[in-house]
Amino acid sequence: MNTTARTSDLSVNAAPNSHEIAFTRTFDAPREAVYALYTDATAIPQWWGPRRFRTVVDELDLRVGGRWRFLNIDSDDNEYGFHGVFHEITLGERIDQTFEFEGAPGHVSLETLRFGQDADGRTRLTGTSVSLSVEARDAIVGSGMEGGLAETYERLEELLAGS
Amino acid sequence: MNTTARTSDLSVNAAPNSHEIAFTRTFDAPREAVYALYTDATAIPQWWGPRRFRTVVDELDLRVGGRWRFLNIDSDDNEYGFHGVFHEITLGERIDQTFEFEGAPGHVSLETLRFGQDADGRTRLTGTSVSLSVEARDAIVGSGMEGGLAETYERLEELLAGS
Repeated sequence: MNTTARTSDLSVNAAPNSHEIAFTRTFDAPREAVYALYTDATAIPQWWGPRRFRTVVDELDLRVGGRWRFLNIDSDDNEYGFHGVFHEITLGERIDQTFEFEGAPGHVSLETLRFGQDADGRTRLTGTSVSLSVEARDAIVGSGMEGGLAETYERLEELLAGS
Repeated sequence: MNTTARTSDLSVNAAPNSHEIAFTRTFDAPREAVYALYTDATAIPQWWGPRRFRTVVDELDLRVGGRWRFLNIDSDDNEYGFHGVFHEITLGERIDQTFEFEGAPGHVSLETLRFGQDADGRTRLTGTSVSLSVEARDAIVGSGMEGGLAETYERLEELLAGS
């Protein structure tokens, strides 16, 4: 666990009556490094999800049409599954995928992640998620998605810093 | 070709500044019959797409995670491909899938189709499509999607009527 205070600039935007959640976050690392941690089955357990869970990569078939499935496992061995399908992959730049939480079956969302490089060398990660209804989007927001994302990206930042 | 005038109640709604296209259409047939034509690879070429194209079912793997791919082929043998992945299937009631037009690569949308039975025995088909941006949604609307849908459902209605 890292004790150095870092400044997170995570911004999450869910406008009223919209199907979308949009977020942006920068990282003090080149985008190749951020993309690599996003797509490496051995790295993902070190940063994906809140710290109170152990993360297991069950599937990571990183090609168009390929499936991913990750598990969050708590200290009582309860498993929470997440899965989806990759739809577009631009190496080092972009991933479009679907996302489903297995605890809420039948609620698919569609996501795009863009790995951009700012002029100062930082990586700017921008994400968009759309749900099939505004109500489903609101349920994701209400589930504490922003806090989970903040913790996940703190972990990713620590890993990038080698801490 | 059928010469009997039929009344289409197709309603397509694309609210300003929304990611969504929503539509509804009724058919004078039980929903089992409508669902069957939607999921039958030998029936799809008889109704899917505008009449000026020949439709070929290249893939139809109707299971969660399975892929579909249809081609529209014009009189000059130009091929227009469409494909996606099935995400949720409730037999006879609901299909969630992704949709991509291969002429506009990188623009995935997520769709749900519900096959409902009205009290008078008609099938009520309701569909929702969400795109990753409002601009992408607007481009689909601007491409003449409503006219294509109207023609497709006229063909489906004719097939259901055995005409």
